[in-house]
Amino acid sequence: MSERFGERVRGALREHGPLCVGIDPHESLLSSWGLSPDAAGAREFGVRVVEAAAGRVGVVKPQVSFFERFGAAGMAALEEVMASARAAGLIVIADAKRGDIGSTMDAYAAAWLTPGAALEADALTVSPFLGVGALEGTFSLAEAHHKGVFVLAATSNPEAAAVQRSSSHSGTTVSMSVIDEISRHNAATAGDGEWGSIGVVIGATVDWADAGISPFTPPAPILAPGFGAQGAGPADLRARYGAMVCSVIASESRSLLSAGPSGLATAIDARVAEYREASRV
Amino acid sequence: MSERFGERVRGALREHGPLCVGIDPHESLLSSWGLSPDAAGAREFGVRVVEAAAGRVGVVKPQVSFFERFGAAGMAALEEVMASARAAGLIVIADAKRGDIGSTMDAYAAAWLTPGAALEADALTVSPFLGVGALEGTFSLAEAHHKGVFVLAATSNPEAAAVQRSSSHSGTTVSMSVIDEISRHNAATAGDGEWGSIGVVIGATVDWADAGISPFTPPAPILAPGFGAQGAGPADLRARYGAMVCSVIASESRSLLSAGPSGLATAIDARVAEYREASRV
Repeated sequence: MSERFGERVRGALREHGPLCVGIDPHESLLSSWGLSPDAAGAREFGVRVVEAAAGRVGVVKPQVSFFERFGAAGMAALEEVMASARAAGLIVIADAKRGDIGSTMDAYAAAWLTPGAALEADALTVSPFLGVGALEGTFSLAEAHHKGVFVLAATSNPEAAAVQRSSSHSGTTVSMSVIDEISRHNAATAGDGEWGSIGVVIGATVDWADAGISPFTPPAPILAPGFGAQGAGPADLRARYGAMVCSVIASESRSLLSAGPSGLATAIDARVAEYREASRV
Repeated sequence: MSERFGERVRGALREHGPLCVGIDPHESLLSSWGLSPDAAGAREFGVRVVEAAAGRVGVVKPQVSFFERFGAAGMAALEEVMASARAAGLIVIADAKRGDIGSTMDAYAAAWLTPGAALEADALTVSPFLGVGALEGTFSLAEAHHKGVFVLAATSNPEAAAVQRSSSHSGTTVSMSVIDEISRHNAATAGDGEWGSIGVVIGATVDWADAGISPFTPPAPILAPGFGAQGAGPADLRARYGAMVCSVIASESRSLLSAGPSGLATAIDARVAEYREASRV
């Protein structure tokens, strides 16, 4: 890819709207799809989701844990699913939430963001518990290969507050300090008027004021889980993300996947239209 | 295993002392060991480390990222290395630092802590960025199978302060609030006088006062990276961990592994003796 990741996402969102299809081969979904609860079932599930998503949305997000559940065989299934998605022109965000320091973190970045690697994705979700600074090597590797990174910033689950809403002496919440550090990186690396390639994860049901977070520049992709089954819908997009609504990747998994293999494409089409309608308002 | 994980670690530390051998097939080590920089090299490396560690220490800690680097093939190598370590009677801590919420986190726990799973370990390191509460399902699964969990609490790297030393309104640091939540879990689950099975990660070079943390009860295993190459040695054990010194699993990787395949067993023997000597003082 000759285009930086941030700009690539910007183009995909313009063309297809914000909907991102989650690839979550949860045991209950494998069962309702009539697939075996093993690596072969997860592979089949993933490939069928990719077929339904291709051409309808710009981005898919495989949930790594549901493949890792089946060990190395599950990871081999994930390799195939990601390769088929990338071959179909979809942007693949590997939702792995990896996080470590130094050469250990660099090895995770190399695993997921090196062109030609078995687990190659277009972007990786990471956790900043060891500090955003510990992710600098990952950011550099991503930028060098025109890949992306999404750093957890503010999540929707209530138990997260104890960590994410703690604050520094100056009163900045952990969530905002993560966003600030990433914005500094993006400001230093994105071209004039371009989007940054290091994005953030901000849950769809997060109240920005409660979380102590505010809009940021330069713009960068915001991965937003929590649409669909977790309660948020297209109408919430603008209410939640305000001025940053154009940057949102609205990820839905179970709400779409529960339509089953035969109904999935239709469910995606309908939801894409709803997001389009809502963004016109 | 009929014994709860905390008690099992207690017995292993009594018998062998605190040294834990890291299994880190870092690219530079594969090269200096004369092994290929691929999954087969990582497998060979891991199996040889297990052979040298067996009978000399109680605990080994494979660093998952250095296997994941090679994709599914690397994870298959890790499965073999962990199986050989467990067969040799070693306690295996999979250092994967996984962290997510709900059924997604449960899938990680199932991957690593279910008896018979391909990636079965004795314990898993996890990250609390999404809240310790989000790990409750993992704790329950671990307890049900007499497995362990190590939650990141206070790490040595300077960049971590922005997150881990942020504090709640009452002034409790994120690190201490993680320890408090885990101690509440352990108090509710460990038998009278027993160690808890949910441990914490506290780096060897962390200054407890600076990090806002203090000794806790009931005792639980403390996984302490940062010994060896990162600067801390046997003499620091008591100075750093004080009253909790008996709970420490002192993890060393490069300091031992750089001895090469022919010198590793001797290097481990020497270091075990140093820790034994230091704990006599």
